[in-house]
Amino acid sequence: MNTAPSQETTPSAGHWRSYGPLDLHPILMHAMRAFNEHGYHGTSVRDIAGRVGVTVPALYYHYENKQALLATLLETSIKDVLDRCRAAAREAGDDPLARFCGMVESIVLYMAHRRQLAFLDTEIRSLEPQNRARYVALRDYLEHMLLDTVEEGRAQGVFTTPIPADAVRSVLVMCQGVANWFREDGPLTAEEVAERHVLLSLGTVGHPAAVAGDVVLPFPRRTPPGRGAASRGSSG
Amino acid sequence: MNTAPSQETTPSAGHWRSYGPLDLHPILMHAMRAFNEHGYHGTSVRDIAGRVGVTVPALYYHYENKQALLATLLETSIKDVLDRCRAAAREAGDDPLARFCGMVESIVLYMAHRRQLAFLDTEIRSLEPQNRARYVALRDYLEHMLLDTVEEGRAQGVFTTPIPADAVRSVLVMCQGVANWFREDGPLTAEEVAERHVLLSLGTVGHPAAVAGDVVLPFPRRTPPGRGAASRGSSG
Repeated sequence: MNTAPSQETTPSAGHWRSYGPLDLHPILMHAMRAFNEHGYHGTSVRDIAGRVGVTVPALYYHYENKQALLATLLETSIKDVLDRCRAAAREAGDDPLARFCGMVESIVLYMAHRRQLAFLDTEIRSLEPQNRARYVALRDYLEHMLLDTVEEGRAQGVFTTPIPADAVRSVLVMCQGVANWFREDGPLTAEEVAERHVLLSLGTVGHPAAVAGDVVLPFPRRTPPGRGAASRGSSG
Repeated sequence: MNTAPSQETTPSAGHWRSYGPLDLHPILMHAMRAFNEHGYHGTSVRDIAGRVGVTVPALYYHYENKQALLATLLETSIKDVLDRCRAAAREAGDDPLARFCGMVESIVLYMAHRRQLAFLDTEIRSLEPQNRARYVALRDYLEHMLLDTVEEGRAQGVFTTPIPADAVRSVLVMCQGVANWFREDGPLTAEEVAERHVLLSLGTVGHPAAVAGDVVLPFPRRTPPGRGAASRGSSG
């Protein structure tokens, strides 16, 4: 189906909180930007070739067609978020609260740092059935990882939601939404947005401390490079 | 800008929970379907005219261009959800908990019953600046209505979230998400999805009862027409 060069999907520094510049083949990078600006159906292979500065046949040498570009981008994206989420879960260990917090943090960091890739999730309707099935299977895997953790938390009385599957879906929807509204020059850093989403998500799954208003987040607060504590937005 | 026939934006039965068939001008109806299937940039005026069964000049008699179609659809959509949300808030009265629940219920019902219209929210990047500004202003108005209610609830100690603006945005993101995943032939009715989102949203804004797992929803449970209580999905 796809003659694409293989993509690095694991974080370069090996840590799920580390984000360098996005490292994509130039053809994929320009395809991603074109799909973001004009949508999948509004972008032609000729447009992408023009952006890259190659001929259409040269582009076809690397990618079979426009569909292969979208499928590769979406698969690169979901595999990266999945890898990071699993790393966060491993690091958190067995405690379901710590695991849940780490997983949500890792997903939101991804959505903020890789929003141009993550935004393509709105194009899954444009995937052909086989590609779509593969993408959806990976997304379902992420959902099940989170749901297993919430179910374990419920069994231990840490989370009280009576509708864990709905809660997990809503948490993932709100995390995915970050890719739509986050701006690098906005008032909050990716790290602050992630931290806030951990708190909001704890409420959604019914963690009592989230509601008592005295959550102690189970991961250290970090001041992102180049921002002092004074520049953090107020919580109101 | 726009020579479109005026659209009915208020619910026909006058009640925010009532949904009849979607009543749109045939040109708008076909434009909506085409945008859903192929995206705004992937749809031509010729495509839409072909679906309607009119000539391109006949279509231009009603709508100035493709942009006017998208702008009219999005404005019709946001005005309808806003009208319904205000009606729900009025019906709930002054109590912030009842208002919040009614507003969230009304928004989710809209997203489920009018998902083809609501899904076009993913196309706001395709609106020209003036149209986009008008749409975003109406969406911001909805957000502020909900935020005012959450702030009032915080003042009364009903909601405990320390980050009300973030909580409200997340609630709206999860409500909007319903337009993406809801299916009429899925396991839950629109009414059940709305009810569950009220519960989840209460957790997100930090309502203690949502976490204690014993919320009594402040609006009556209704069995939607044609579905018996036995067909309701289990909560697990």
